[in-house]
Amino acid sequence: MSVRRGTNLDRVGGFNDAVVLDAIRRSTRLSRVELAEVTGLSGQAISNITRRLLEAGLLRDAGRQRTSGLGKPRTLLELEPAGQYAVGVHLDPAVVTVVVLDLTGEVIARRSVGTPHADDPDVLIDRIAATIEDVITEAAAPRDRVTGVGIAAPGPIDVERGVVVDPPNLSAWHLVPLRDELRERIGLPVLLDKDVTAAASAEKWAGGGGSFVFFYLGTGVGAGLVIGDEVVRGSSSNVGEIGHVIVDPDGPVCYCGRRGCVGEASQPRYLVQQAMQTGVLAQGIDLDDRGAVDAAFARLCSEAEDGPGLAREIVAVLAERIAKVVEDIANLLDLERVVFGGPHWEQLAPLLGDAVRAALEERFLVRSVHPFEVAGTALGVDVGAIGAASLVLDQTFSPNPSVLLPDRELVGER
Amino acid sequence: MSVRRGTNLDRVGGFNDAVVLDAIRRSTRLSRVELAEVTGLSGQAISNITRRLLEAGLLRDAGRQRTSGLGKPRTLLELEPAGQYAVGVHLDPAVVTVVVLDLTGEVIARRSVGTPHADDPDVLIDRIAATIEDVITEAAAPRDRVTGVGIAAPGPIDVERGVVVDPPNLSAWHLVPLRDELRERIGLPVLLDKDVTAAASAEKWAGGGGSFVFFYLGTGVGAGLVIGDEVVRGSSSNVGEIGHVIVDPDGPVCYCGRRGCVGEASQPRYLVQQAMQTGVLAQGIDLDDRGAVDAAFARLCSEAEDGPGLAREIVAVLAERIAKVVEDIANLLDLERVVFGGPHWEQLAPLLGDAVRAALEERFLVRSVHPFEVAGTALGVDVGAIGAASLVLDQTFSPNPSVLLPDRELVGER
Repeated sequence: MSVRRGTNLDRVGGFNDAVVLDAIRRSTRLSRVELAEVTGLSGQAISNITRRLLEAGLLRDAGRQRTSGLGKPRTLLELEPAGQYAVGVHLDPAVVTVVVLDLTGEVIARRSVGTPHADDPDVLIDRIAATIEDVITEAAAPRDRVTGVGIAAPGPIDVERGVVVDPPNLSAWHLVPLRDELRERIGLPVLLDKDVTAAASAEKWAGGGGSFVFFYLGTGVGAGLVIGDEVVRGSSSNVGEIGHVIVDPDGPVCYCGRRGCVGEASQPRYLVQQAMQTGVLAQGIDLDDRGAVDAAFARLCSEAEDGPGLAREIVAVLAERIAKVVEDIANLLDLERVVFGGPHWEQLAPLLGDAVRAALEERFLVRSVHPFEVAGTALGVDVGAIGAASLVLDQTFSPNPSVLLPDRELVGER
Repeated sequence: MSVRRGTNLDRVGGFNDAVVLDAIRRSTRLSRVELAEVTGLSGQAISNITRRLLEAGLLRDAGRQRTSGLGKPRTLLELEPAGQYAVGVHLDPAVVTVVVLDLTGEVIARRSVGTPHADDPDVLIDRIAATIEDVITEAAAPRDRVTGVGIAAPGPIDVERGVVVDPPNLSAWHLVPLRDELRERIGLPVLLDKDVTAAASAEKWAGGGGSFVFFYLGTGVGAGLVIGDEVVRGSSSNVGEIGHVIVDPDGPVCYCGRRGCVGEASQPRYLVQQAMQTGVLAQGIDLDDRGAVDAAFARLCSEAEDGPGLAREIVAVLAERIAKVVEDIANLLDLERVVFGGPHWEQLAPLLGDAVRAALEERFLVRSVHPFEVAGTALGVDVGAIGAASLVLDQTFSPNPSVLLPDRELVGER
């Protein structure tokens, strides 16, 4: 953001500030001499930049480093966790999660609330704003150190206008100007991006570079993409719509009118229905009661894990279908791995992970050139919210001005 | 950019040369004053750079421009077509195409020869080398002006080692070091990339930026990708393997062992077989005779175009299947268009284009944010070879040092 400040000279300063902050973030702590080596900047430049960043409270001393020679020990520098905070909001049709990250990317406060099923989006936006205030208070983050709020929302979104267009599972939402509405309520800069893109960004921040797909299993499915260490957004930041890939022409009817879309076929509701039909679960579960469905789904998954039988077959069929989708994406994009996440991943993990691994070992077409890995997110169910906040932090650490495109800029008063 | 200046003067020279050449290429002709405006370089720098490029024979005078004021008319500069040449080779299992492009990207000579079905790759490599020599001679391109040879090969490839790993339709090929073998024979720098990536690059060169998939319909199908004006290569340059997306669980058996893979289901061989079975074409066509199959396929397509009936139904079913694959890729990557090409595209174009357009109008999930377009390549059947040559020219015009990654660098003696 400092890149935008004033003149060309300031801009180069901001660019180099980001280079230095990013170098320290990647190595946890570095001396000034090491910083000069890593960044290619002169000792004098490093001296000026680090002084400025220490004064600004973004860096702090981290003790001394013994050197092998006769020189005096070098002071190490690390990020000052309290130097900056970022808020992340994940708007899921079922639950809203809000986190606060410090400058090092640690989650220091979180809260999740059920998404109110109101006809009026204002009710939900009020609820989100109130939750953000609560979490900032809980984090004890001084307001002038909170850089901004990132929102991870279901697509399609209009990033340029900060608008949630028509999310399939939030029926009352149509062209809701979420970014500006929220900014008005909380008085902080706000950016909006897609849920799966935020999750992919979180994975990248957590150290997973390279080329991968983040496969989200929740209310619907979605794919976030990182290729060659870069988050892929597509032409309008609406990347990752995989819910209508057809995996079973005889499968359940999807709201799109066709049968067997993977988004529908992987819903607990459908699996629980199958389990009732085959006698794995007793009849009488109300498929419109989300709580009842979730509990029944948990029983189904646990029974599937226990051993062979009808329960396992139901989950195995789903696993094969998801594996085919992963296979097709991996082959299309020449990826190195899939990272699964989202609320339904943890229950499905034991069987799904193995199934996808086995399928890809056989069918990844570039396997003679490089392997393909299957992993679950280490960031848990908050990955979307953490990712939304990481998009805000990104702007502090990004030494590449080209990522600061207007359509992803924080829009705010500061 | 200024950050880089000073560390390596030679490199900055090359970098700015590329900036200037690229600016002229995009505008066809520019004056020095316009060049300074467009590139942000000083008048003095432009004066030095253009003098160097004129002396090197890469630019030439292009007449004078009247100015509105009283100043003297400005000299315009344009690319000197004969300043540099690039050779492109498309290695298709059925046909090898070789083109020579001049510095402006114009095809000035071409030749295609049937791919010999020899067990020994050496025979084919000899044939390619001889064809390259012929085409360079035909182009009357002085050898010291030929920058290099680009090869577009079917995947998977090992770009780092310049090796064609195991192309599914060239059964005798396994780990053939095509790049180095060819370089030894012809004494020119050679680069190797995937066929579909080369085709996507050609489309980009021809003016089609943005975000699109190049959908190749030939011996097998494949997808080249450009997202945000950048060619997407994936983690090992093996992007675009879409041949095993299953479009019909009851379809023909694929060599991978499954049924209904789109690569198999879209082969003329399979469509002609269907046409014989339904009586659209007379029995007795030898499905192992490529020439006979191609001729029968042409009859089928022409009959399908003539009006409703069984022939049209066969083609319509294929069109729907291909449309579904395009739909899934477009939704995954938030693309703006598909560009079809390859030897089978022209015959299928009238029906396929409309079918894909209709399907995407209804099913492109981001259609409320931006439209999706369906086009055919304007570069004809040589698009792969032209693309291979454009990858060589790219290196002259690319002002971005990061595209000159070691694994895509020209390997050669010069």
